[in-house]
Amino acid sequence: MTVDPPVPDVSAPGPWTDPAGEVAAHGPEVMAWAVRYLSEVTQHPVLSQVEPGWVRAQLPEHPPAQSEGWDEILADLDRVIVPGTSHWQAPGWYGYFQANSSAPAVLAEAIIATLGTQGMLWRTGPACTEVETLVLDWLAELLDLPRSFRSDGAGGGVIQDSASSSTLVATLAARDRARRAGARLDDLVAYASADAHSSVEKGLRVAGLMGDQLHLVAVDAHRAVRSDLLIKAVQADRAAGRVPFMVVATVGTTSTHGVDPLRTMGEVAREHGAWFHVDAAHAGAAALCPEHRWIHDGLDLADSYVMDPHKWLFTAMDLSALWVADRQPLVDALSVTPEYLHNTASGSDGVIDYRDWQVPLGRRFRALKLWAVIRRFGGDGLRDAVRGHIALAQGLAGRLAADDRFEVPLPAPLNLVCFAHRAGDEVSEKLLADLNATGRVFLSHTRIEGRYLLRVAVGQTSVGPEHLDELWDLIDRLAPPA
Amino acid sequence: MTVDPPVPDVSAPGPWTDPAGEVAAHGPEVMAWAVRYLSEVTQHPVLSQVEPGWVRAQLPEHPPAQSEGWDEILADLDRVIVPGTSHWQAPGWYGYFQANSSAPAVLAEAIIATLGTQGMLWRTGPACTEVETLVLDWLAELLDLPRSFRSDGAGGGVIQDSASSSTLVATLAARDRARRAGARLDDLVAYASADAHSSVEKGLRVAGLMGDQLHLVAVDAHRAVRSDLLIKAVQADRAAGRVPFMVVATVGTTSTHGVDPLRTMGEVAREHGAWFHVDAAHAGAAALCPEHRWIHDGLDLADSYVMDPHKWLFTAMDLSALWVADRQPLVDALSVTPEYLHNTASGSDGVIDYRDWQVPLGRRFRALKLWAVIRRFGGDGLRDAVRGHIALAQGLAGRLAADDRFEVPLPAPLNLVCFAHRAGDEVSEKLLADLNATGRVFLSHTRIEGRYLLRVAVGQTSVGPEHLDELWDLIDRLAPPA
Repeated sequence: MTVDPPVPDVSAPGPWTDPAGEVAAHGPEVMAWAVRYLSEVTQHPVLSQVEPGWVRAQLPEHPPAQSEGWDEILADLDRVIVPGTSHWQAPGWYGYFQANSSAPAVLAEAIIATLGTQGMLWRTGPACTEVETLVLDWLAELLDLPRSFRSDGAGGGVIQDSASSSTLVATLAARDRARRAGARLDDLVAYASADAHSSVEKGLRVAGLMGDQLHLVAVDAHRAVRSDLLIKAVQADRAAGRVPFMVVATVGTTSTHGVDPLRTMGEVAREHGAWFHVDAAHAGAAALCPEHRWIHDGLDLADSYVMDPHKWLFTAMDLSALWVADRQPLVDALSVTPEYLHNTASGSDGVIDYRDWQVPLGRRFRALKLWAVIRRFGGDGLRDAVRGHIALAQGLAGRLAADDRFEVPLPAPLNLVCFAHRAGDEVSEKLLADLNATGRVFLSHTRIEGRYLLRVAVGQTSVGPEHLDELWDLIDRLAPPA
Repeated sequence: MTVDPPVPDVSAPGPWTDPAGEVAAHGPEVMAWAVRYLSEVTQHPVLSQVEPGWVRAQLPEHPPAQSEGWDEILADLDRVIVPGTSHWQAPGWYGYFQANSSAPAVLAEAIIATLGTQGMLWRTGPACTEVETLVLDWLAELLDLPRSFRSDGAGGGVIQDSASSSTLVATLAARDRARRAGARLDDLVAYASADAHSSVEKGLRVAGLMGDQLHLVAVDAHRAVRSDLLIKAVQADRAAGRVPFMVVATVGTTSTHGVDPLRTMGEVAREHGAWFHVDAAHAGAAALCPEHRWIHDGLDLADSYVMDPHKWLFTAMDLSALWVADRQPLVDALSVTPEYLHNTASGSDGVIDYRDWQVPLGRRFRALKLWAVIRRFGGDGLRDAVRGHIALAQGLAGRLAADDRFEVPLPAPLNLVCFAHRAGDEVSEKLLADLNATGRVFLSHTRIEGRYLLRVAVGQTSVGPEHLDELWDLIDRLAPPA
């Protein structure tokens, strides 16, 4: 199947020959679009109202042969993309955990793509590498994390795309450390809260373990792991010849913000030589504030710790921060070096090649985004914003608790409030549907002991008292008597 | 450790309360910086000249407490980041495989961060989901991929962050399919070229397999897998009770652009019930041009196929495209559904939740970037650009082959040219160092049968004949007589 190729004219003009000219010509209209979107975001239904298939049906089934203009692309954003978007950046988004963005993150993404760095090795991105190490030291300082996670010792931080990937690489480090110590894969067993995030199970499955190699430990009334049951489970497994290799604690479970007892769990892990991983993907940001640092009590026992600046710290997907107390087991699990990556810098001491800290080989200069966010907000600004979110959530919890129709059945110490209508699950479920149908807010749900709970996570970049007032007015108006 | 919290003022002004105002105020200066960087990129040494530790030493060891201005951040880009950057977007970057960006990708990244979509479920991002399905159908059409990969049948495409991740999830699908069929993990064995990318080995290790479960098959003089040896290896393994579960073919190996015999390898895989994965991460883009589609002969036998628009199709890291002929084994390997993700749309037929096609839960609206690139370039524009790169590479290969000092020992049918100085490895190695020391170009190297080869990959967004002329002039000037 050979075809005579046309003789190419490699100097033909097109959008590719002059990137500077293209950005100069169209950057302003794209920025203007972004400003308008951000200004008008409250005018759209928070959750997209389109039916499955609608978006695709609006767009051509075949790619264009000829270049289209930015005016056409931007018009399609308004015509198709915006109606087809669930507006994660709307102040009325209270669902799941937020994934907040901010202007510094938006502008930094444009810079990251402009530089186009692929920082797999120190050599291919010295700034990409060193700013990442620095900015994770900065964040460790802001969160007052244990010294063991700083890069000046055996530990350090690395950016992953998601908490799922952070937990996966911690799992791989733990797995391979146990195998090197002689354990068989089939004998390994991990422990986590019954309320732990699904990424714990997914990470173990990716790593080759089967479902029965994850022991989900029951929780107490506050949805924290029962240490007594963890200890019993570990002892029973050891007696049966299995090898406890990993204990995962959660700070702020996805369902209800349960906080596991880190110190006890860490001590159990240490006693049995298991890796201790702490998942604070969402709630970890609260540790910016000294009054909330109780959530990290016992974190000094952790081998690894993850929190996501892309959830509650304005950094926009995808920027998950993972720290390890000892980087060697991570590198042991993830380093593979072919000839074409050999170079003088990597062969010497003193440089980090972050490809050895992650599954992918290539990597973007994501650190620049976190660097811009921390600098533009300042540590005080980040702390004020997070403290504000918590105050707003507490205000809502107070209003709910003071109203006879509602119950707030679990502690809500931070920015997640779960509540139920006292008339029962059907009424709660209908209230959620009615709230979301207004288009003004989006809430998601969970079930605890079979009971249906509405969840309100308060962490949007531009959320303020007026939005919580509106949410309360809607709840008050739409909820029937108890 | 409880501390009386300050009473927060949740309406205090800051960069977070008014994202629209912040983008309006500072977007123009960030765009102006991007235009200047792109205009001046040829003025910097292609490979950063800084020593390890220099970047960090220029920056404050502690995070700022107070908000800093964009003027300070942009000044630091020029003062620290640019000198510390290896300029992947410079036209003189010929190292590794390129990771090219373009103006449409830069502008689309700003839009993606502005929308801030987290498209884990169809429901949380209908447009994020449906544009992804559509645009991968578009790309399959542009590359003339087998019909089996289109979304209107059992198959479809999905965006991953890297070819490493694409190969990993294909490996997981293959592994779990084999386990469901009764194979033990320890008995599984995979096959790939001795020149296959390191991500194949890394993916298997992540999946829990040991080093001896990857059989690296020797290559012929053109660096393509020897099918006779593959067949012998499979037969020997089966006779020994092992289970061949995956065959990986490479289209355009990283070292030398070797192209494996897909049809024979695919037939071997089918005969033995193994998953057939094809890695065309870089070279796959050449299939835009009918005259280069011979590289995909036999692709109709593949279970999965990866190519990276972020390498040679102007889409900026990180956008790897993976297609599968049957999506079910992928979803079987990667789906875990907790209560808080249950929703009506996912419970019905007809929507895709891409979280079940990848390791992470969260995902960005990366499809918008590929959509913008395809529309702005047009299919013809993409084809012209790739064809131009190949013509430029062929021109260089011709000059090298016509010069007594050099040898081009391997076929170079596309945009990668490997060459050696006939005076031997030491001279070749010194030539590479001397070329890179000019700061005008960056080349990387490989070793084949112990021999040192210089590599020139021609695929930069703004590379043109004048840059290849400059490269040739440098080679001509710096190379000693044979």
